[in-house]
Amino acid sequence: MRRLGIHSFVWTGGQTQEGLEMALEKSAEHGYRMIEFAYLQPEKFDLNRLSKKAKDLDIEIVVTMGLPAGADVSSEDKSSVAKGKALLSDAVKAVRDIGGIRLGGILYSMHGKYDRMPTEKGWLNSAEAIAETADVAKECGVQIVLEVVNRFESNLLNTTAQGLKFLKDTGRDDVYLHLDSFHMNIEEADPAGAIRLAGDKIAYYHIGENYRGYLGTGTVDFDQVFSALADIDYDRDIVFESFSSAIVDEGLSLACGIWRDTWTDNDSLAAHAKTFIELKWDEARRRHSTNAHP
Amino acid sequence: MRRLGIHSFVWTGGQTQEGLEMALEKSAEHGYRMIEFAYLQPEKFDLNRLSKKAKDLDIEIVVTMGLPAGADVSSEDKSSVAKGKALLSDAVKAVRDIGGIRLGGILYSMHGKYDRMPTEKGWLNSAEAIAETADVAKECGVQIVLEVVNRFESNLLNTTAQGLKFLKDTGRDDVYLHLDSFHMNIEEADPAGAIRLAGDKIAYYHIGENYRGYLGTGTVDFDQVFSALADIDYDRDIVFESFSSAIVDEGLSLACGIWRDTWTDNDSLAAHAKTFIELKWDEARRRHSTNAHP
Amino acid sequence: MRRLGIHSFVWTGGQTQEGLEMALEKSAEHGYRMIEFAYLQPEKFDLNRLSKKAKDLDIEIVVTMGLPAGADVSSEDKSSVAKGKALLSDAVKAVRDIGGIRLGGILYSMHGKYDRMPTEKGWLNSAEAIAETADVAKECGVQIVLEVVNRFESNLLNTTAQGLKFLKDTGRDDVYLHLDSFHMNIEEADPAGAIRLAGDKIAYYHIGENYRGYLGTGTVDFDQVFSALADIDYDRDIVFESFSSAIVDEGLSLACGIWRDTWTDNDSLAAHAKTFIELKWDEARRRHSTNAHP
Amino acid sequence: MRRLGIHSFVWTGGQTQEGLEMALEKSAEHGYRMIEFAYLQPEKFDLNRLSKKAKDLDIEIVVTMGLPAGADVSSEDKSSVAKGKALLSDAVKAVRDIGGIRLGGILYSMHGKYDRMPTEKGWLNSAEAIAETADVAKECGVQIVLEVVNRFESNLLNTTAQGLKFLKDTGRDDVYLHLDSFHMNIEEADPAGAIRLAGDKIAYYHIGENYRGYLGTGTVDFDQVFSALADIDYDRDIVFESFSSAIVDEGLSLACGIWRDTWTDNDSLAAHAKTFIELKWDEARRRHSTNAHP
Repeated sequence: MRRLGIHSFVWTGGQTQEGLEMALEKSAEHGYRMIEFAYLQPEKFDLNRLSKKAKDLDIEIVVTMGLPAGADVSSEDKSSVAKGKALLSDAVKAVRDIGGIRLGGILYSMHGKYDRMPTEKGWLNSAEAIAETADVAKECGVQIVLEVVNRFESNLLNTTAQGLKFLKDTGRDDVYLHLDSFHMNIEEADPAGAIRLAGDKIAYYHIGENYRGYLGTGTVDFDQVFSALADIDYDRDIVFESFSSAIVDEGLSLACGIWRDTWTDNDSLAAHAKTFIELKWDEARRRHSTNAHP
Repeated sequence: MRRLGIHSFVWTGGQTQEGLEMALEKSAEHGYRMIEFAYLQPEKFDLNRLSKKAKDLDIEIVVTMGLPAGADVSSEDKSSVAKGKALLSDAVKAVRDIGGIRLGGILYSMHGKYDRMPTEKGWLNSAEAIAETADVAKECGVQIVLEVVNRFESNLLNTTAQGLKFLKDTGRDDVYLHLDSFHMNIEEADPAGAIRLAGDKIAYYHIGENYRGYLGTGTVDFDQVFSALADIDYDRDIVFESFSSAIVDEGLSLACGIWRDTWTDNDSLAAHAKTFIELKWDEARRRHSTNAHP
Repeated sequence: MRRLGIHSFVWTGGQTQEGLEMALEKSAEHGYRMIEFAYLQPEKFDLNRLSKKAKDLDIEIVVTMGLPAGADVSSEDKSSVAKGKALLSDAVKAVRDIGGIRLGGILYSMHGKYDRMPTEKGWLNSAEAIAETADVAKECGVQIVLEVVNRFESNLLNTTAQGLKFLKDTGRDDVYLHLDSFHMNIEEADPAGAIRLAGDKIAYYHIGENYRGYLGTGTVDFDQVFSALADIDYDRDIVFESFSSAIVDEGLSLACGIWRDTWTDNDSLAAHAKTFIELKWDEARRRHSTNAHP
Repeated sequence: MRRLGIHSFVWTGGQTQEGLEMALEKSAEHGYRMIEFAYLQPEKFDLNRLSKKAKDLDIEIVVTMGLPAGADVSSEDKSSVAKGKALLSDAVKAVRDIGGIRLGGILYSMHGKYDRMPTEKGWLNSAEAIAETADVAKECGVQIVLEVVNRFESNLLNTTAQGLKFLKDTGRDDVYLHLDSFHMNIEEADPAGAIRLAGDKIAYYHIGENYRGYLGTGTVDFDQVFSALADIDYDRDIVFESFSSAIVDEGLSLACGIWRDTWTDNDSLAAHAKTFIELKWDEARRRHSTNAHP
């Protein structure tokens, strides 16, 4: 594990400068060293100020997003694809401007429940759009990671195996996977096996519980997740994600189906998550080492 | 376990009389004694003939459905609620006419991804609609069961605890829960504990794998599921459910997000599922008995 | 959970006054509020001084032991049974003298690998001996708990169901079970179910990993263990137990088959165990509460 | 999986020619294609007749054993080591004479509860003895596999990592590991990881439940076991093992601590085990394939 981060929606719906600054401070205060801003709208914020504050706190910034229906690069409609590419390019530049290191999420398709099957042509359009975005990202010093998500949030990349094939089809070696324990719980036959399969193609890992609540209270087998991360000597970033209707960003809440409170006290949630992840990480490394040495 | 059944979509998209008859025959051939028809459109079929065929094969029929957006009984719009009630009443009568024993599914709300939060008034509208439907069902000799589903398929009843509260709010003692291992894997902190909590309020149980593929190949902890069913002396029906794009009903495939083949050979799938469920059931009863006796 | 304790063999082989005093201090320093002394030899120590030190540190003392071959109350040999009873009576008094609250372990049989089958007569001899011991214990203000252990450490009580039957056969309502996750992992079909079955007959619970090493690094499903403890509203004591050849008490090491180092740094082990148990306990209570409330 | 076998003690205590012949027939009748005879005493049986019967039934024979205290090759006592070597050499020849393919078990130490720590010199004596035995075995066309067992049945090889180091110290490439899910449940931090670590050094795998009863009723995570076997493309033999006091061989019962009935009907046990293992094997291969292919 390189850095342990936290999703900003634990702290704020993310609509105000004050909210994002508070989120940076809260994250640092709890010992996290990375923050994820979702659906950052650069025009609403003083990016320089956020960038400077993050540097002062030694917090790295990652931005995530999904495409809207009208700018879906996995569409067969040229105008939709063109709008999607422009949107991705702008997003990469905003990440650069806020001093961020990475753009992740559902960059390859609409974020939402599709009402049509995916198509081969849409897949190729998407792969090409991601390749072009990677060019922009390279110039901007921003890393591109693609989040493999459950069937209700995209119809294109639902499994790690699909994600790996997609990476190949982009023809790039600087685009990576963004895996997520919540989504894998819905889509993978063998989440730990998928992590071992993807190996160093994973550059970002979301830790979330099956029902998006407190870690360790649900059904995700985190011991297997962390064992697999230890097996591949994972040395990139891990970010904790949990959503509750206690913190409301209407757009993301609706996209992710957050209809109920899974927690109300984000301070205790964040403190617990940090302890939990560090404990499981430590246990997995000990397990790995115990296993290997006579 | 009373009867072991199978979802008809393992066999057919369900659009033709021949398809449904074949599904009845296939189910019987594999030793199942119950079939679930989803989104039955009574006007398209010879219900008498299906009823007689089912009786001849000793297969009981269950029908499941969810409400469409315009006939959502959990809406705050009176006209939508009225349309939903009429639709439910018609559905109950169709179940009676096909010789079915039970109407299940998402009877209390739209089946699909909501783009609004649930409301208290909508909840009460829904509870009242279900109570009225239960009156009709009583006269028709049909049992009403409400399927608790994941957040992407309804915003109202996502957890067993919500389902139990809803049952109370209907004021009926003849309406039951329809639980489902696929949905519980997404929403419950403790699926086995939820089964023990619901106890004899469960009248129908769907066995499905986390990614809707072959049983036993995914992450659902079926040993815990069956242990909990043994703990509550579950003596009602269990139905196997699995969807693949190999069998296409466009409506349900889109509602459930079936974008990929999880299997292609439904005969081997159905044979495996029957063996699997009977084995796990037997093991759970032995475990229960081993545990209790010195 | 009432108090969280730790086995003294994490700190010391237990052969010297200084060792036991250091163990008390270390336990308190790490925030534990109970200590378990195994195979305490009262004649070797200044019990008053230990008692006073424990009180000053607000550490409660529990003593555990198993019977030697020649003083086995589950024997059919009268002289062996008589020696066993005397030994148990002396042990109870030593617990009183050291200011302890409880005597636990394999009080009902030899601690070790039997080379004969258990007998009905031996069972009855043992139940009678425990009943007599309970009389002495009552006078001394000491609680008696019987540890259900794996087949290699006793042939009499290997499962919780056997333990519950044995309690009945003692005719006492003040003798309780002492369960242990390490032993249950070897003998129980359903460890969580066994905890729910025993309910308030459990008065002492040992938390140990399957191979006796660091908690969370092995195969014991502690989420299920703590869920079951939450289910029964367990409000008695939990004690952490781990053995390594790094700390040597020859007798116990041989009886328990401790042939290898599973850890070397007991400070980090003890710190981790406390964090682990408190985290799992908190998660189980949240899970329980999440499950039950809509 | 090459062949699926069954331990003869499911059928018989193994003391008579009739018993062994019946065991061969029962195994074949249930569809097993391999049998394990434990502690075969060649002088008591008509080996030719057993060999011929096995061939006629297309059942392969494996023999397993552990050394007695007086012939322990891991001793520091020369005479004990010499006796052990002679005993192993005779056992290899008996395997050849009965037409068997393999000698397994605790060939490297006493089978039983040690009352002393293992020593470096004993380890080397044992490795040398196994190397010599492998020479004899090579001439006899018999494969040597070493069973890694729990701490109560040997003090030398309790973990796979120890087993792998031991194989190296024999200097042979034709000696393999014999792993066992029952023992691994007691000793391994990560049983599945241990299987992946050992890879093609495993030539024989015992499937047994945690408490030695019906498969699938206990705590062993067989899905992980079979996933790991699929990961390493395991193409050697698997043998089902379960002991109950219903079938008595006094020696093995005492060595293994079989104090209670875990089953009484061996026909249903054997039928269930075959279905269980084949189902889990099939599921693991599907899981592996589902995971790997987009």
